Amino acid sequence: MDNGVERISSNELSDRMQVTASQIRQDLNNFGGFGQQGYGYNVKFLYQAIGKILGLDKTYNVIIVGAGNLGQALANYVRFEKRGFRVIAMFDINPQLVGRKVRGIEIRHLDTLSDYLKQNDIQIATLTLPKAAAEEVALKLVEGGVKAIWNFAHTDLNLPKDVIVENVHLSESLMQLSYNITRHQKGKDEKL
Amino acid sequence: MDNGVERISSNELSDRMQVTASQIRQDLNNFGGFGQQGYGYNVKFLYQAIGKILGLDKTYNVIIVGAGNLGQALANYVRFEKRGFRVIAMFDINPQLVGRKVRGIEIRHLDTLSDYLKQNDIQIATLTLPKAAAEEVALKLVEGGVKAIWNFAHTDLNLPKDVIVENVHLSESLMQLSYNITRHQKGKDEKL
Repeated sequence: MDNGVERISSNELSDRMQVTASQIRQDLNNFGGFGQQGYGYNVKFLYQAIGKILGLDKTYNVIIVGAGNLGQALANYVRFEKRGFRVIAMFDINPQLVGRKVRGIEIRHLDTLSDYLKQNDIQIATLTLPKAAAEEVALKLVEGGVKAIWNFAHTDLNLPKDVIVENVHLSESLMQLSYNITRHQKGKDEKL
Repeated sequence: MDNGVERISSNELSDRMQVTASQIRQDLNNFGGFGQQGYGYNVKFLYQAIGKILGLDKTYNVIIVGAGNLGQALANYVRFEKRGFRVIAMFDINPQLVGRKVRGIEIRHLDTLSDYLKQNDIQIATLTLPKAAAEEVALKLVEGGVKAIWNFAHTDLNLPKDVIVENVHLSESLMQLSYNITRHQKGKDEKL
């Protein structure tokens, strides 16, 4: 779409995505199918349809609990806001952070979290705090009505089943990298 | 291992991991198999064997290019160091950051990167800088002999085939979350 392409075939998509054309057709058909035989896909329509599947046609109020470097990095990602994820408050216990603002977003004291949740409709809470505090805070969030948690704390949260948790384990990604380095090195050694 | 468990069956692993026991056996057999019929797996041995597969039995010199919030957050993850990933330098162009230290790690000027790479053996470079600068810096890293890049910039890097790139797309994880919220909400609406 950015390149001005108006329609695209599954074969052209396949070249760009390095996934087979039949896989692309099959995946999209699972959601109803958005292409036409002989025409392919209308790019703008497909973009909107996929956005709708992903829930990007709505806006979400987001809070960030843990205003350290990682929390601040996430608060600064303007592109999340463009996709409908509006960070409206941050929380921390560090007196050097409480009261400060990041991109206009106030850092509040964690003690005020429950009251805040009573007065605001929050769809997503981001957990960027130490492992030891994560579960206790998560339970407070759930009590306050939050139904979705984006969890960067290095721990699996034990929460009611209707709470949606998306874990980000950066160390898994780093291990994937070291696995590939090791495999690559092994491949080179075997060729010698 | 942390809980003092010395041996474990694939069935017990299955309960903990929520993957079928046969999948676990099959996966581990792909790497040679580490269990014994009727005994199961020796936990300490399995931990070491998996660590070796993942390349965690070695140490890696890591640099972080981009010393903003995200770069600093990664530099502060002591647990990466415990796994053998030693961050030994950071780079940035921001005069307010250059010369400062994060957890004892100096932030150097990006202009000194190529010289630094001549004098130091770096296995992994972490890219935590804006998209616009990522590819140029990545090419400099590759010229300097870096063979593995952990890429947090929101762009696909176009690099020689022997360079290993692990992309971290945080927005994909956030979209997974919003997809699950949407699906969950739809499920509830349909029940009404």
